[in-house]
Amino acid sequence: MKKLLYPAFLVLLILSFSCKKTVPASVSAHIEDGYIVLETPEREPGQRSALAMKCEPLDVVRVAFVGIGGRGSAAVYRWTKLEGVDIVALCDLEQNKIDNANRMLEENGCHMAEGYVGEEAYKDLCKRDDIDLVYIATDWLDHTPIAVYALNNGKHAAIEVPAAMTIKECWDLVNASERNQRHCMMLENCCYDFFELSTLNMAQQGLFGEVYHVEGAYLHCLAEVWDNRSDWRIFYNMDHRGDNYPTHGLGPICQVLNIHRGDRMDYLVAMDTPAYYGSEAAKKYRNEDRCEEGDHTISLIQTEKKKMIEVQHNVFSPRPYSRIHQLTGTMGFANKYPTEQISVKSMGGHEALSKQIMDSLLMTYKPEFLKGIEEKAKKVGGHGGMDFIMDYRLVYCLHNGLPIDEDVYDAAEWSAVQELSRISLENGSMPVKFPDFTRGDWNVVNGFSYATR
Amino acid sequence: MKKLLYPAFLVLLILSFSCKKTVPASVSAHIEDGYIVLETPEREPGQRSALAMKCEPLDVVRVAFVGIGGRGSAAVYRWTKLEGVDIVALCDLEQNKIDNANRMLEENGCHMAEGYVGEEAYKDLCKRDDIDLVYIATDWLDHTPIAVYALNNGKHAAIEVPAAMTIKECWDLVNASERNQRHCMMLENCCYDFFELSTLNMAQQGLFGEVYHVEGAYLHCLAEVWDNRSDWRIFYNMDHRGDNYPTHGLGPICQVLNIHRGDRMDYLVAMDTPAYYGSEAAKKYRNEDRCEEGDHTISLIQTEKKKMIEVQHNVFSPRPYSRIHQLTGTMGFANKYPTEQISVKSMGGHEALSKQIMDSLLMTYKPEFLKGIEEKAKKVGGHGGMDFIMDYRLVYCLHNGLPIDEDVYDAAEWSAVQELSRISLENGSMPVKFPDFTRGDWNVVNGFSYATR
Repeated sequence: MKKLLYPAFLVLLILSFSCKKTVPASVSAHIEDGYIVLETPEREPGQRSALAMKCEPLDVVRVAFVGIGGRGSAAVYRWTKLEGVDIVALCDLEQNKIDNANRMLEENGCHMAEGYVGEEAYKDLCKRDDIDLVYIATDWLDHTPIAVYALNNGKHAAIEVPAAMTIKECWDLVNASERNQRHCMMLENCCYDFFELSTLNMAQQGLFGEVYHVEGAYLHCLAEVWDNRSDWRIFYNMDHRGDNYPTHGLGPICQVLNIHRGDRMDYLVAMDTPAYYGSEAAKKYRNEDRCEEGDHTISLIQTEKKKMIEVQHNVFSPRPYSRIHQLTGTMGFANKYPTEQISVKSMGGHEALSKQIMDSLLMTYKPEFLKGIEEKAKKVGGHGGMDFIMDYRLVYCLHNGLPIDEDVYDAAEWSAVQELSRISLENGSMPVKFPDFTRGDWNVVNGFSYATR
Repeated sequence: MKKLLYPAFLVLLILSFSCKKTVPASVSAHIEDGYIVLETPEREPGQRSALAMKCEPLDVVRVAFVGIGGRGSAAVYRWTKLEGVDIVALCDLEQNKIDNANRMLEENGCHMAEGYVGEEAYKDLCKRDDIDLVYIATDWLDHTPIAVYALNNGKHAAIEVPAAMTIKECWDLVNASERNQRHCMMLENCCYDFFELSTLNMAQQGLFGEVYHVEGAYLHCLAEVWDNRSDWRIFYNMDHRGDNYPTHGLGPICQVLNIHRGDRMDYLVAMDTPAYYGSEAAKKYRNEDRCEEGDHTISLIQTEKKKMIEVQHNVFSPRPYSRIHQLTGTMGFANKYPTEQISVKSMGGHEALSKQIMDSLLMTYKPEFLKGIEEKAKKVGGHGGMDFIMDYRLVYCLHNGLPIDEDVYDAAEWSAVQELSRISLENGSMPVKFPDFTRGDWNVVNGFSYATR
């Protein structure tokens, strides 16, 4: 017995120092040196990076839409206005959604598309050999499974936001895109709104100097809908704590900071409030008062270069809509909500420029690709034009065999904030390390740019 | 030797589990369960709480000013416009500052005040038995020492912001105020600005429902001064990381959340950026490139009731001035910078009210005490009137033997963010527990209010 005591103590001693406290997450996670670290899975054999990936050019982009609800039907309409595309198939849980969309196709001078109805019907659609792109606008929980299935069947995938709901799903998308060398784009439309486009260009041209702090948000009173009826979004919020919808605010500001194109998101801390609205809604719709998502959630993200990103989320408070979109730099500043402001040190110091000068700047710094499509975009919509511009750029890149603007690493990074914020919140705002979805290549591409032929 | 190994291992084992990692701070601090915890010193015998403290009424407030620089001389001027006060003494490092102030006293119909010149001269001033209040507007590092000296000599103290520069100094103020049962007020003028006063009243009347998220900031491009000359403020920033000037943004929003009057600040996490501007300034003015304070610093604070406070700091970027001052509630919302907005669910849902309706609300909800002094305040100034209103309220409370609006616990709490943010930043954004400066009485007073006779 005594002879075992020495080694027993030794083992115990070593264990007490080396035992890492595990943390519940969709992938393996543990606490290390005051951070929560998530496991990065190894690349499978035969899998190559999809960074700056170019695929074979397509004369005509043959697209299939899965999910013809609010977003989906609006997308089908926009694609009737694009050139060099062919809307081949439509898939939904309900036949009448397909019928409505087909009626709209005919009204807009397109042929009818083949219909696929039912929960598994997307699989047959994805197996077709006459489709290039599967455009997914289903409810959130089906986004990644359908995209992975499409990618595994050799199709490019375009997914509504958020593209993935967990870190595991983020890796599923990355791995499927890399494995199949097919594009996987998250349809973040807000990157294509006019103020965002121009201020990104200004930032890249150095007008703001070194941009080091950026703020985005999704502050949108959806409670006004939920006062009258429930839907799957409020139920999702009831079941999931954290920033469940970060991408609209986060996307444009990540582009400004060249995330995985010279910088990367290093770690995140999050904080939230109680669920005042959500718990009342849960009583009303579910007869229980538990709601996971707080009324207000804030995430602070430090980048590798020690720059700072702030993302906010509140879909409950009766407050004006805002994505904030604020860029703070050494030589200038831009802010979109509640009122557009730009200040440039060399042009007037810290005071906001007059509307006249600001509008002139915004016009001057429109990106090249906007010329010739802006009027059409505003006419087709949605959301003032940014939705059309987003689709236009995707089609342009597919036509010309170019890297897409919003790649699978963007999809993963911007979606990852959901689970990362949840983990931080469940652990007393402990900092959580961002996975490097590029697996080491975050500094290979030198800055964000719109590919052109 | 062998006989010692058992107990040695045992001791080592126990130590490895019980040893708390200490953290450098101005008071004793250690890491516990993922938080940094600061020691709360015991109350000395004979020391009583200063919460809601009433002191003997004063027919005439006999005041002495220490520090007659920019802020100090402006304060002396404002006090020539107050009734029931007597400016007894002036103290500064430089004689000509005192001479200028005395000249201004005479020009404004007051008798000259006795002058005290030199570094230690405030001590003789504090020992006088014909002074009730010592009003301190020196450089930051002298704020607490002079205030403590005044309190220990039986004088009330009013201190420019920040009242204390470290947690230890916060406790020094609290202990001195409690021990001597004398008022200790931090001169946070921004609590008395018009939008802040009205929206606080609106919040208290329930217009915004439960206010659960508040944002404040000090975003003020002082770099425009430092481009041309250095001063003690830029040097302080070079030597201290963290939010070095939190109170202007933090004060008004803490009043809305009834901090230490029903709720309390529980813990803080901070994040910052590199010191782009500061390191260049350090090269220029000190011939070294080290600057501790990042260009942008953000603190997120969770309260005991799980509400959320955000405080931002940036004195370097050429961006428009902002204290943000944003209140988010279940039934409404208010925001001051860059443009005043109010939304009230019952009055228009989430959209911002028209300027006309908003201005009408702001006027309707002015606090009672503003009636009769508003015009004079705007005429006397400074900063549009809020400085005069602040002094007016202090004098009113001293005249009537009432609790002051901004008590020593406010002074401590709002100042504490400096060192608490620094500690969090130096420890990878680890959450830092707020000391309870009331030592358990944060829930005794039922909500913030302006004392009236």
